[in-house]
Amino acid sequence: MSTFFVKNEQINDNFIKITGDDANHIKNVLRYKIGDKLDICDENEKRYDTEITEFSGNDVLLKVISEKAYTTESPVFITLFQGLPKADKMELIIQKATELGVSEIVPVEMERSVVKLYGTKNDKKIERWNKIAYEASKQCGRQRIPHVLNVDILKNIIEKFSKYDIVLLPYEKESGKNLKQVLQSNQNVKNIAIVIGPEGGFSENDLAMLDLPNVESITLGPRILRTETAGIATLAMLSYEIEFER
Amino acid sequence: MSTFFVKNEQINDNFIKITGDDANHIKNVLRYKIGDKLDICDENEKRYDTEITEFSGNDVLLKVISEKAYTTESPVFITLFQGLPKADKMELIIQKATELGVSEIVPVEMERSVVKLYGTKNDKKIERWNKIAYEASKQCGRQRIPHVLNVDILKNIIEKFSKYDIVLLPYEKESGKNLKQVLQSNQNVKNIAIVIGPEGGFSENDLAMLDLPNVESITLGPRILRTETAGIATLAMLSYEIEFER
Repeated sequence: MSTFFVKNEQINDNFIKITGDDANHIKNVLRYKIGDKLDICDENEKRYDTEITEFSGNDVLLKVISEKAYTTESPVFITLFQGLPKADKMELIIQKATELGVSEIVPVEMERSVVKLYGTKNDKKIERWNKIAYEASKQCGRQRIPHVLNVDILKNIIEKFSKYDIVLLPYEKESGKNLKQVLQSNQNVKNIAIVIGPEGGFSENDLAMLDLPNVESITLGPRILRTETAGIATLAMLSYEIEFER
Repeated sequence: MSTFFVKNEQINDNFIKITGDDANHIKNVLRYKIGDKLDICDENEKRYDTEITEFSGNDVLLKVISEKAYTTESPVFITLFQGLPKADKMELIIQKATELGVSEIVPVEMERSVVKLYGTKNDKKIERWNKIAYEASKQCGRQRIPHVLNVDILKNIIEKFSKYDIVLLPYEKESGKNLKQVLQSNQNVKNIAIVIGPEGGFSENDLAMLDLPNVESITLGPRILRTETAGIATLAMLSYEIEFER
């Protein structure tokens, strides 16, 4: 069951009105009928079980049955700083990272990024990437839609690192600490950054810039993961460590 | 650095001869020169650090510098029984599962599989899928190339379940045990199966067939993962639990 996101103004007493694309999707794509159940999330990240009570013109009217008690969000805020890869890979990363609980994605143009976008006009691309995050959020039942920020460069993003408890730097030549060792010696972290190199990996210059106190260079295991696999794997492992009760 | 797989007969004393496509790849795509290092894996899954000593006609001659002491293979044999999805997703799953350490992949046509392949002549497709596993193995440094088996059906695969210590069944409606709880109460397992539903999920009939003693229905967390994400995430989590030292 997909989640639909609504503005608070769409909720009135115990009724919710769905309009526009979403209403069209419910009626004409999903072909839902009166009495069918829908999962709704409001601007305050509250989620509701609802039921379709009426189709009125192009709108769909829902009745709230109950508020959901559980959250689908990670207790940790996770930013993925993704070394800018080729276009189709970026889209895959955004979709999968959303499913796996990322909070925010920042595409970072690094020295070995083949695609160069920093400083260019790319509103359409950012809009498209945010649309992918939005659609993935609906599909996997997120309560908070991850934001895809503008393309940035390393020099700027390292200035944001102080707001994170820990910055994870998976690096294929690292044979020291693994992710588990770092997470287990940093319990109760609230903000995590992950920095992933582009297709060609980090350059020497990138690594020199990233040689900072709260940046932990880690291994993700014995095999070399592609750029689009590294972030996905790190997020799955973070979810396993943080979201799964023993 | 990619790994190249060689037959034992290609190794003679401390020298290795690379021929055919691989030699072409090394010379004309990677444009390696004499003195460059290569990672080689033989049929016994031994890995070597080698150095290019000669280009002879279409062949490349390497000298073994040393045998690698570490393994890139998981200590656990993992079979992914993947509910047959649409074509591009299957290719993504094979590539990513290989990177994340899968031992074997069996495409399983389930009731809600849109693509129907069981019982049809599909040698070309199986060959292509195995090629993807082979290329991914080279790229990520595997020592053992995962085998992609023929498309099968649930009725047949459940007969193979007895050879696994545990069969994991991620199911989005499961709100009971999570993967961590199941893995931590099944220490020292040697053979794990993962069964993933296709795009539409498991049908009631599928689930009835899978209701067996060593099949553990599990949750992969609070969000609903797409079919191509579920196997990838499970494999990343298994690697984290099993391959990462504390």
